[in-house]
Amino acid sequence: MLSGGPSSTESVNRGPFLTVVGAGVVGLAVAWRCAQRGMRVTVHDPAPGSGASGVAAGMLAPVAEAYFGERELTALLVGSAARWPGFAAELTEASGLDLGYRTEGTLMVGLTGDDVAEARRLWAYQQELGLAITPLRPTELREREPLLAPRVRGGAWAPGDHQVDPRRLVAALRVAAERAGAVLVPEPVEQLSDVAEGPVVVAAGWATADLTGLPVRPVKGQLLRLRTPDGGVPGFRHVVRGYADGQQVYLVPRVDGEVVVGATVEERSDRQVTVDAVLRLLRAAVELVPELAEYELVETAAGLRPGTPDNAPVLGPLPGRPGVLVAAGHHRHGIVLTPLTADLIADLISTGVPDPQLAAFAPDRFTTTRIAEGQPWS
Amino acid sequence: MLSGGPSSTESVNRGPFLTVVGAGVVGLAVAWRCAQRGMRVTVHDPAPGSGASGVAAGMLAPVAEAYFGERELTALLVGSAARWPGFAAELTEASGLDLGYRTEGTLMVGLTGDDVAEARRLWAYQQELGLAITPLRPTELREREPLLAPRVRGGAWAPGDHQVDPRRLVAALRVAAERAGAVLVPEPVEQLSDVAEGPVVVAAGWATADLTGLPVRPVKGQLLRLRTPDGGVPGFRHVVRGYADGQQVYLVPRVDGEVVVGATVEERSDRQVTVDAVLRLLRAAVELVPELAEYELVETAAGLRPGTPDNAPVLGPLPGRPGVLVAAGHHRHGIVLTPLTADLIADLISTGVPDPQLAAFAPDRFTTTRIAEGQPWS
Repeated sequence: MLSGGPSSTESVNRGPFLTVVGAGVVGLAVAWRCAQRGMRVTVHDPAPGSGASGVAAGMLAPVAEAYFGERELTALLVGSAARWPGFAAELTEASGLDLGYRTEGTLMVGLTGDDVAEARRLWAYQQELGLAITPLRPTELREREPLLAPRVRGGAWAPGDHQVDPRRLVAALRVAAERAGAVLVPEPVEQLSDVAEGPVVVAAGWATADLTGLPVRPVKGQLLRLRTPDGGVPGFRHVVRGYADGQQVYLVPRVDGEVVVGATVEERSDRQVTVDAVLRLLRAAVELVPELAEYELVETAAGLRPGTPDNAPVLGPLPGRPGVLVAAGHHRHGIVLTPLTADLIADLISTGVPDPQLAAFAPDRFTTTRIAEGQPWS
Repeated sequence: MLSGGPSSTESVNRGPFLTVVGAGVVGLAVAWRCAQRGMRVTVHDPAPGSGASGVAAGMLAPVAEAYFGERELTALLVGSAARWPGFAAELTEASGLDLGYRTEGTLMVGLTGDDVAEARRLWAYQQELGLAITPLRPTELREREPLLAPRVRGGAWAPGDHQVDPRRLVAALRVAAERAGAVLVPEPVEQLSDVAEGPVVVAAGWATADLTGLPVRPVKGQLLRLRTPDGGVPGFRHVVRGYADGQQVYLVPRVDGEVVVGATVEERSDRQVTVDAVLRLLRAAVELVPELAEYELVETAAGLRPGTPDNAPVLGPLPGRPGVLVAAGHHRHGIVLTPLTADLIADLISTGVPDPQLAAFAPDRFTTTRIAEGQPWS
């Protein structure tokens, strides 16, 4: 599968046509994988990478993201995270671009006793799932990251929770997909009946709702980008996921000097950056890593994640619409789920046979009544 | 002086040449006043309004800005503030543009007992100067501004401390100056010897130092712009100048929905927006007016004020350089001092006789030793 693809931008693909709607990380990765298999892929998006992909933090964190009651999703997250090292290496090679991929792992920390207790409930669940978690005493935490505030009362290390820079990922996927023969068309698909030929993969984030009638809703997230004052590398290397006086925050340090501080999760569809969100994120960030007070605030942003009723993605055939596949609804997990999503969808298109892993995420889990009633979700 | 000026952009001026260096509020106002008197005015600036004028909050606040030991400056501030109503009316008429001029006055408030005590020392000094100040009890404060936090312990009303929108002021001054016959040249003046003919007014903000050798230094200020979530008018009408747990902050509500939150005063020359400043300003703002938490954060900015060793402006002839006048170093007072500065400089150019008010602000108060030693300040 991975060898033999065309290496120039001139398509030599002669296989079946495929249209991908949406050039976020999921759509581009599906396009890349399918173009590698010889399909004639067209990706439609007026602004590639401008949706949730452009404001994602890029934590490849099945462990830190494994919440109670989401065991099937956790299995998918762990499975996709396991593909990341190979995926990153192959994509870097195929695109010639750096992804900002870092493997120092994640520190999960709590500022107060209450914060640690809150975090500990989650670690216990994650350990129960068999995920790698090393609890650390405050002194061990600070040995690992000396910039952590003296007030930090406890934490744990998740060595397998890595990170990537989603904007670099979009750029690399775009190059790799085009080199494999895919063609990007900077125009939207307004309705699926506009697509003339071949199967369609809808990977349009929360806009997937309008195209398919599936219950994908926008979930607003606000995040900030800081930079070191001198342009150097941030003084901490791990992703830090913390609780600070009840406020959750994550800090993602990049080697190019950027630190992403995120993120709110709001049931809203606007893209306004609010005072409250900026204040809460910055306060928690500085409480956990005081040095961040001296950093430059270079960007405030709000994006819309594609959420579903059960917080799990929608992957597979759209009921009642032969030839239409969905790869959307990744909510907070789009970046980590990109490799496995792309492989599963490409396999399904190639073989016509869905992988058993897809069963729990099939679109028909939502559509039975709604489509029958002719009432698409809005 | 105010009548008989040309009303079209085609200059009919036939008087002496004048070059103004810098198209901030001071340079543009000088240009307008001099063009009104028939001078042939050229204003040089590659980016009009892009200096301190573009990030000023626009508080016309001689009272709130009257600090200890600055009596001569206070007199200048009060004198210029007194000209503002007429200046605003005339400029609105001359430009046809709205300045965002508001006359509800300023509330000076303290959040805690310590904050009120700190503020009260200043009010007492201002009352001693004969300035209008009305102390208000917490209930009176909230009758006047119901959105003030219940925690606010005390305050006072300065009815004469008004506000204007500096960006609208720049736009209006530019139109008025051009209608009066001034010509804007979007190129910098690198050195004063490049100016071929006639007198020169250097109104170049902190860059005045390089052109004149005067000790004008950049003083960094960071400020934020918020907007109401629905685009409506903010729920409070007064400028609020507050102390919140030791942090000074001001909140300037505009009828177009904007609220300016400022500002830091830092002895730095960079323009980085820092986490610490944003955090401190937002925290203090929300503590004083909790509703601001719901507002949109639309801009973070840093600008460089022109500071001088005694915090007072530099107004008048540059020693040793016949034909060169300076109108710079206005530090935090550029907007309020614009009308009087422009009138005094225009009078000086017209008559050759300095107004007695200029004596305390003459450039030669700094230059005696420095120019003699040939060591311009840097």
